[in-house]
Amino acid sequence: LSTFTPKDPNFKNRVRENFNLQPMMKTLGVNLDVVEAGKVIFTVQHHNPITQQHGFLHGGGVAAILDSACGYAAMSLLGEMEEILTVEFKTNFLAPALGETYRFEGSVVKPGRTLVVTEGKAFAIKDGVEKQVAMMTATMMPIMGRDDVKPAY
Amino acid sequence: LSTFTPKDPNFKNRVRENFNLQPMMKTLGVNLDVVEAGKVIFTVQHHNPITQQHGFLHGGGVAAILDSACGYAAMSLLGEMEEILTVEFKTNFLAPALGETYRFEGSVVKPGRTLVVTEGKAFAIKDGVEKQVAMMTATMMPIMGRDDVKPAY
Amino acid sequence: LSTFTPKDPNFKNRVRENFNLQPMMKTLGVNLDVVEAGKVIFTVQHHNPITQQHGFLHGGGVAAILDSACGYAAMSLLGEMEEILTVEFKTNFLAPALGETYRFEGSVVKPGRTLVVTEGKAFAIKDGVEKQVAMMTATMMPIMGRDDVKPAY
Amino acid sequence: LSTFTPKDPNFKNRVRENFNLQPMMKTLGVNLDVVEAGKVIFTVQHHNPITQQHGFLHGGGVAAILDSACGYAAMSLLGEMEEILTVEFKTNFLAPALGETYRFEGSVVKPGRTLVVTEGKAFAIKDGVEKQVAMMTATMMPIMGRDDVKPAY
Repeated sequence: LSTFTPKDPNFKNRVRENFNLQPMMKTLGVNLDVVEAGKVIFTVQHHNPITQQHGFLHGGGVAAILDSACGYAAMSLLGEMEEILTVEFKTNFLAPALGETYRFEGSVVKPGRTLVVTEGKAFAIKDGVEKQVAMMTATMMPIMGRDDVKPAY
Repeated sequence: LSTFTPKDPNFKNRVRENFNLQPMMKTLGVNLDVVEAGKVIFTVQHHNPITQQHGFLHGGGVAAILDSACGYAAMSLLGEMEEILTVEFKTNFLAPALGETYRFEGSVVKPGRTLVVTEGKAFAIKDGVEKQVAMMTATMMPIMGRDDVKPAY
Repeated sequence: LSTFTPKDPNFKNRVRENFNLQPMMKTLGVNLDVVEAGKVIFTVQHHNPITQQHGFLHGGGVAAILDSACGYAAMSLLGEMEEILTVEFKTNFLAPALGETYRFEGSVVKPGRTLVVTEGKAFAIKDGVEKQVAMMTATMMPIMGRDDVKPAY
Repeated sequence: LSTFTPKDPNFKNRVRENFNLQPMMKTLGVNLDVVEAGKVIFTVQHHNPITQQHGFLHGGGVAAILDSACGYAAMSLLGEMEEILTVEFKTNFLAPALGETYRFEGSVVKPGRTLVVTEGKAFAIKDGVEKQVAMMTATMMPIMGRDDVKPAY
């Protein structure tokens, strides 16, 4: 379905390597399932450390995972020396997030040299039934050659 | 500075007990420092599991913590049988989040029976210098008596 | 494409009558083209009073029209005595809005008794070529029986 | 209160001249009251063409005016050859907007070469009592030398 042309033919490996360097993705138990040009899909198994007080997946956690899905969707279209920073995002929560498994999709809506506009969708799968639980719109900024966007600790 | 009158005189304990039941807050290393009527302050020490690939605090993690700060700010004004769900939030990132310590403030802007509008601010403290790194606006919904907003796992 | 069941079989007339009572829609030159259950489409001809300093359709004007499109999409699903207020919306601008004609779509994503989540898309049509120029996510609140939501001037 | 240093000492005149070129501001009846470095204040008298069906100021109209207030706040800090485009904004509505007069404030939160983060507040003044009716966060992009950001019609 994707109609974007990635600048870097090696984008799938580059996205996966970058993803593997994000400690936060491990902390949240995120698995990178699919990388296409302009789109990524994550899956997460329900586990207690990312829940809130009613046992739902924490809404802020849903947003954190969608933010990364949107960021990697944007990164898939960049050149190999470019990085991504999130400018802003907004999340609407459609239903409490409760399932055995969750799927998170990040997609590029509008690529650009200065800014990339993306959207994300989160789904809970419970007893084989899938339900959308959140939606996001996010603005991403490609960056290159900024000294402060390097590993720091 | 707070000019709101909480419905529940025991709101400080109620917020703290609820906070202690959120596994996600432990996962992200969040400490609840201050609870006032309509305002909470969290602090977080920099630690690797909540960082992204450059060593910054993960932007989605910043938003997840601000979401909880805004939610507890709203909860501080509610009656003792009421709970909070996040309707939506938007975060703007002002600078990469890098410090030894982070402070997160959540404040009620407009209380209401059906919806509570809140705002959040995140700061990084590095070498004794504090810098705002993100801002949030969030809509919270007080709920009471919904069967699905109970511990589920 | 719509899969929503409206509560009021007369929803198309009700939406049109309400639309005709909005002075702002006349001021902005908005035409209500299509009303379906959970969806409306507006068209606008380019005209100088709604432009900004470069001759583009004013971004805030684009958002104002999308807000109404989302609001009427939500209203199409309500009972005949219910009204709609906008809780919040967010707009991302994808390209400067410049065309002979503009199309605005508002759609319900998630209906609800307390809140209705909607999304909007704005397109510019220039020399027969259509281009998306903005996207919106908006939260709408159905209301009934509030004294202040009545004609006031 | 402003602590920003404008690049262009003539910023007040430049903002006013640009404002006067926006047809949309005339259409909405906006008066530019105050220009400071990083801040502008608009006032609007209540008039029927910008209302919705209950006689309130149209929410989308409130947002359109706040968008311009935020844009001009950002523009006040730019060099004389730079222009502003809105990247995105989000508005939360706090109360129906009904007054004899409205005040709109736009302020820079974080200036930047690539992006300027701003916030806006809208107030209704009725019988001498002022009430906040909306808040906005907006991202603005300074631009220079783009052929498409020139008067086109």
